[in-house]
Amino acid sequence: MSDFREDGAAALEWVASYLENVRDYPVLSRVAPGEIRATLPASPPERAEPFSAVLRDLDEILMPGMTHWQSPRYFAYFATTAAEPGILAELLIAGLNQTGILWRASPALQELEELTLDWLRQLLGLPDPLHGHIEDTASSGLITALAAARASAPGRRVVVCSEHTHSSTTKAARLLELEVRKVPADETYSMRSDTLDLTDACAVVATVGTTSSASVDPVAAIADRAAAEGVWLHVDAAYAGSAAVCPELRHHFDGWERADSIGFNPHKWLLVPMDCSAFFCRHPDALRRAFSLVPEYLRVNEDVVSLSEYSSPLGRRFRALKLWATLRCYGREGLQAIIREHIRLAAVFEQWVDGEAGWEVCAPRHFSLVCFRFEGSDEDNEEIMRRVNDSGEIFLSHTRLDGRLVLRLAIGNARTTEADIAYAWDVLRREAAGL
Amino acid sequence: MSDFREDGAAALEWVASYLENVRDYPVLSRVAPGEIRATLPASPPERAEPFSAVLRDLDEILMPGMTHWQSPRYFAYFATTAAEPGILAELLIAGLNQTGILWRASPALQELEELTLDWLRQLLGLPDPLHGHIEDTASSGLITALAAARASAPGRRVVVCSEHTHSSTTKAARLLELEVRKVPADETYSMRSDTLDLTDACAVVATVGTTSSASVDPVAAIADRAAAEGVWLHVDAAYAGSAAVCPELRHHFDGWERADSIGFNPHKWLLVPMDCSAFFCRHPDALRRAFSLVPEYLRVNEDVVSLSEYSSPLGRRFRALKLWATLRCYGREGLQAIIREHIRLAAVFEQWVDGEAGWEVCAPRHFSLVCFRFEGSDEDNEEIMRRVNDSGEIFLSHTRLDGRLVLRLAIGNARTTEADIAYAWDVLRREAAGL
Repeated sequence: MSDFREDGAAALEWVASYLENVRDYPVLSRVAPGEIRATLPASPPERAEPFSAVLRDLDEILMPGMTHWQSPRYFAYFATTAAEPGILAELLIAGLNQTGILWRASPALQELEELTLDWLRQLLGLPDPLHGHIEDTASSGLITALAAARASAPGRRVVVCSEHTHSSTTKAARLLELEVRKVPADETYSMRSDTLDLTDACAVVATVGTTSSASVDPVAAIADRAAAEGVWLHVDAAYAGSAAVCPELRHHFDGWERADSIGFNPHKWLLVPMDCSAFFCRHPDALRRAFSLVPEYLRVNEDVVSLSEYSSPLGRRFRALKLWATLRCYGREGLQAIIREHIRLAAVFEQWVDGEAGWEVCAPRHFSLVCFRFEGSDEDNEEIMRRVNDSGEIFLSHTRLDGRLVLRLAIGNARTTEADIAYAWDVLRREAAGL
Repeated sequence: MSDFREDGAAALEWVASYLENVRDYPVLSRVAPGEIRATLPASPPERAEPFSAVLRDLDEILMPGMTHWQSPRYFAYFATTAAEPGILAELLIAGLNQTGILWRASPALQELEELTLDWLRQLLGLPDPLHGHIEDTASSGLITALAAARASAPGRRVVVCSEHTHSSTTKAARLLELEVRKVPADETYSMRSDTLDLTDACAVVATVGTTSSASVDPVAAIADRAAAEGVWLHVDAAYAGSAAVCPELRHHFDGWERADSIGFNPHKWLLVPMDCSAFFCRHPDALRRAFSLVPEYLRVNEDVVSLSEYSSPLGRRFRALKLWATLRCYGREGLQAIIREHIRLAAVFEQWVDGEAGWEVCAPRHFSLVCFRFEGSDEDNEEIMRRVNDSGEIFLSHTRLDGRLVLRLAIGNARTTEADIAYAWDVLRREAAGL
């Protein structure tokens, strides 16, 4: 253990120092494909090496290959934070190595997962009772939801969603051999519920906070239609779900309390390290009908349903511990403060864009994502994006709205300040001016 | 960061001390269902609490709810180890929070995953080239394999496996709406290849090291038949795969080099913390046909295939870092030494059982799992198991072979010594004598 304490102190100092200096790294990695791998030995070592060699190579070889998701100047896709309580909880999780294959294999894992999901339910203002468990990603949660929906409506093989629904719906539908029917969106990129055709549908997927533009589908209207036609409603709130921690933002989620299932990623905007995707469901029995299967070697006389009976994997990590640590070390107020500050920063950035000649805001802003563009060609915007990302100063990504290439500034890192936003805006205008 | 350094030092000391004392905990948790949850607050805190409160409640409330997978006296299911390099790597992984949604989002993550899987391939003696990526569990790997098999053989909807194949095959087949055809096993619990009926089969699953008894299916003979009939062969070596690191044990794996896909869990017997399941495939194009889907917002001009195109999840953790740290800090020799010692310990235990009146060995032993029973009724054996597990001194589990309840002693913890298995044997004989 003397080595472990010494190596551990070095690893801990490495992380502390990384987090102190993360603002100074080029945000997007500048390596060429294959460059990192080519620098590493092609074969594993024959003999043991010290942990210090791992840390050395992490610094010297791997670091140039990192895109810094922890940087306060990371604005691409959805910006995230692995905050300190969750980071340290991962150390505890690995040290304990609990493996939840059934309740008795770790009562603490299962019961803390059930409890923290109920804490989340309360924080989001969702009704009781509601089954909750943790999946690795929202993609897996969609498979779970659609598999339960398929099993609940034999013969119906269509999944209805909007043209802006995340690709994971199409990917899950392909795995489950379901057909995807895409509904057009209106001018705010919100699903048009008036043209919703649920014929032969087993499920409809509504999104609060699409990946493309953080647009919001009319969940209440869709819930009415789904209920009337006996169709499973899944609400994908992978990114925006965190906003429901703030009561003044709950109106965006109207109707999700009637959803059959909900996916929401605390690893996106709720400070938990990757991966931790919350899955809620009003019909735990439907999940069990789709997934439960207890082999002889796991059969014991317990009046407990193990979490593995609600989705695909048999084994599960003790992810609940990092969710628990995060919720406790921030508290409801701490989480609200961060969400509100990110929304304030996004509003500030939006105003700057709106007030600047030659730039335009391209989609209604509900949360912490701003969609905007330079008033030039798609090629101009693509070139601006390429230049700002190549500069390493900030990192952002794009989408396509109404056929046009649109830039996205996603705010979600707990260390991001107004100065970082101002810096991003300076970099963008500088590169636009240099076209 | 001063808090982080201080809290981190406390968390590190917690883990170091836990690993030093883990032999002294009751192995199987003694709490009743619901007991842990009832002791925790029903609602999340309003205000932030210090990380020290998390550590305090971990000790005082959660610890009684742990089943100690890290204990050297844990012999249930498959015994595992989260070794020190992987534990510290989890701290680094969380600190960096790399999220591999596409190559540029973390070139280091993708290239280290590709490299370490190739290192594994070399350690296992598998041929080059072979696509490799990491899944969370072997259950997910089976879904990946069977989805690719299904897509490669339209119209064929049967999966063939043995009666001893792990339940994850049936679970994956249900998700994919495939029919499972079970082939009988011979007297060594190995799939009978002479009666193999591959009519309408898209896949056959052969196991090296079944969960029930660590039996070995005749992979070479099955590979011949699968190749002749154009059926996808998946080899499930989730537990035993690690043994292939030792050349003298490779004969158990004869033929797996011809498998279309292989699943193998370094988080089981290769010292990596949960979760890290290796997935190998000779047909990466078939995986991409089944899974690849790149939405607009992820489209970039890169001549690189992202790892998310080979399976379901879009986001992935930087699991490769813990695999890399483990392979380096042990080296091939270090890994071999542990595998060989576990097999030696299992052989010693098997001899003790074999030489003791009133006890019998119930299945051929190939690796580090011993199947045995007391020569009494099933109820007697169940009672022995209940008593030894309730004592907290050791933890083991059961299976059913030829209709009889059989006890399993699985060796796989790096801290397990000959004294620990002698202790286990004493506890077992004591409880049998007390019947």
